[in-house]
Amino acid sequence: MQPRDLSDHVAYEAGRGIEEVARELGRDPSEFVKLASNENPHGPSPAATVALREAASSVSSYPKAAHADLSAAVAERWDVSADQIWLANGGDGAIDYLSRATLEPDDTVLVPSPGFAYYGMSARFHHGDVREYDLEREDDFEQSADAVLSAYDGDRLVYLTSPHNPTGTTIPLAEIETIAAETDDDTLVVVDEAYGEFADRDSAVALLEGRDGFDARDDVAVLRTFSKAYGLAGLRLGYAVVPDEWAEAYARVNTPFAASELACRAGLAALEDDEHVARTVETTEDARAYMREHIDAHVWESEGNFVLVDVGEASAVAQAMQESGVIVRDCSSFGLPECIRITCGTEEETERAVDTLNDVLESAGTGSEVSET
Amino acid sequence: MQPRDLSDHVAYEAGRGIEEVARELGRDPSEFVKLASNENPHGPSPAATVALREAASSVSSYPKAAHADLSAAVAERWDVSADQIWLANGGDGAIDYLSRATLEPDDTVLVPSPGFAYYGMSARFHHGDVREYDLEREDDFEQSADAVLSAYDGDRLVYLTSPHNPTGTTIPLAEIETIAAETDDDTLVVVDEAYGEFADRDSAVALLEGRDGFDARDDVAVLRTFSKAYGLAGLRLGYAVVPDEWAEAYARVNTPFAASELACRAGLAALEDDEHVARTVETTEDARAYMREHIDAHVWESEGNFVLVDVGEASAVAQAMQESGVIVRDCSSFGLPECIRITCGTEEETERAVDTLNDVLESAGTGSEVSET
Repeated sequence: MQPRDLSDHVAYEAGRGIEEVARELGRDPSEFVKLASNENPHGPSPAATVALREAASSVSSYPKAAHADLSAAVAERWDVSADQIWLANGGDGAIDYLSRATLEPDDTVLVPSPGFAYYGMSARFHHGDVREYDLEREDDFEQSADAVLSAYDGDRLVYLTSPHNPTGTTIPLAEIETIAAETDDDTLVVVDEAYGEFADRDSAVALLEGRDGFDARDDVAVLRTFSKAYGLAGLRLGYAVVPDEWAEAYARVNTPFAASELACRAGLAALEDDEHVARTVETTEDARAYMREHIDAHVWESEGNFVLVDVGEASAVAQAMQESGVIVRDCSSFGLPECIRITCGTEEETERAVDTLNDVLESAGTGSEVSET
Repeated sequence: MQPRDLSDHVAYEAGRGIEEVARELGRDPSEFVKLASNENPHGPSPAATVALREAASSVSSYPKAAHADLSAAVAERWDVSADQIWLANGGDGAIDYLSRATLEPDDTVLVPSPGFAYYGMSARFHHGDVREYDLEREDDFEQSADAVLSAYDGDRLVYLTSPHNPTGTTIPLAEIETIAAETDDDTLVVVDEAYGEFADRDSAVALLEGRDGFDARDDVAVLRTFSKAYGLAGLRLGYAVVPDEWAEAYARVNTPFAASELACRAGLAALEDDEHVARTVETTEDARAYMREHIDAHVWESEGNFVLVDVGEASAVAQAMQESGVIVRDCSSFGLPECIRITCGTEEETERAVDTLNDVLESAGTGSEVSET
């Protein structure tokens, strides 16, 4: 026998890891730098590393108290109640919980194109269908209520990403409010703020809670993660902040223990480590500015911890950079076959990436003049 | 707005943790022993703890090479190909992958009653319905092809648990083969062997691979976990072993990175630590025998790392034991309001649990004579 028809289920294409690439090319991992997956160049919060070492001998217990502690600490950070925090196994896990809480078979979700693949994957896992709104290259991938609402057709979930992956654009809270107000009563607007710490903007949590002059809403949820600014991607820890009206549903849609004991303990430590986050954000801002100034090709403005670069032929350029030891993300799988995405690294990593890219562009004879056409 | 109608989604009731109970009762955690969640009394494999400490400073990277390494190592252990190993965030995660790979809306899954709640929860998350087959108390919860097939009605998934939670019974491979052979062509039989290391029996992987005199089958999958014998419950790591025909579907149904980097590294180390598993199994066998001999109430034979005990009124007895510092599992949520489940602890923990239970039974005047009626 076989699985059911999964032909509309698309496999996720992840950024490639150093060990994987080094093995494939038969080279030493130390020759490589990976700027392909928007990971933290400073590593995890040192406080989280200490917490992990301390917890390493007690991982035989199912998560329990640490989960409650982390929910409470995250809730305090956002000034919401603890049951509005839906901890999950990474942001992807939180997306699954929202799918479980909302989607009936054949309901649709509206997602950005280009955009993060898992919104649609999760919808399909739950028998939903996927519809897209376009972020237009000629508008520098600008996000607006108009762009979303003109594509909207009664979809059950509307995903916004701010800052947006892979373009780095954001959407103002007033535009999100317009989208929430003008969509149907049973449409939930999900604002993915995985890269929120890198943008100097208020969180859409203000819309749920009725702060900063907005009326409180029960049709907006926010996604956040410990994978980026907190540097815990390898632990899998993310969460949704949901309206008070949604709090009770968590017990009915979550997978028990999905946020692991170790992840919760590391998350607790990382959450208090403001210094590590501040340092990470500063490095990111420096790297963004450096890349925009020094790359010999068009680099879009970005509020994330990465930049999108028009290199003409992403797959060839990414391949050539990889051979020179710099792993970046070919954006073909995002529907941008002319673009690569480069994560903000340390100063040294970023300079190496820029030099490598410029060398590749020059030797291919496709410098900025060509690729910007 | 509100979530969709989730009234048939039941919240999972987990065993209670020491910290949680100690906080509630305002007492010191060191006064308690937890034998409620079938955790490993010897803790995690020491090799896994070492691996965790080593990996603690590199958790800022998404899982990648470690995931591939662990798939290969697990596959070698079972002598199957690496893509037949579907690593997941705990056994629950693997159950979700099977739900995604099989269930169309309104498809049904057939699950044991009493039994593990997540089989049905996952089915409902994926718009399936749940049907039950009964394990009869008067037959000592014996599992048989007859019991399953007489309840079977074209269900898409049939869950077997061997050893069974919470009763400790097993089902012979020949019976599983009969079930697989006599159910429809599009029915997958899932054999949950979360407690497999504690039973001196062959795995149902023999049915997938056509070993030990069985013909190879493409309609049986096996679930295994690192949470029990390997002592990694707090890390969340489990997997399905699927027939070769199902291997390709993994990329289309898995959540990227769901098995975390730390979990994969710890799993790799634990998998090689045969000594820790052997010690755990020995302790378990001793504890099972001790509890059956010394508890003044009916204790069923068990091949898991726990025993089921008829105490008359589970909730009152579990509560009284908890007040005396021993946390056990009240099986009311399994549909067995007269039973508690006690995890096999260390010699000291087990003796304390038995003494505490016997004291509670005696002071309640509900010794074995009463509870066995």
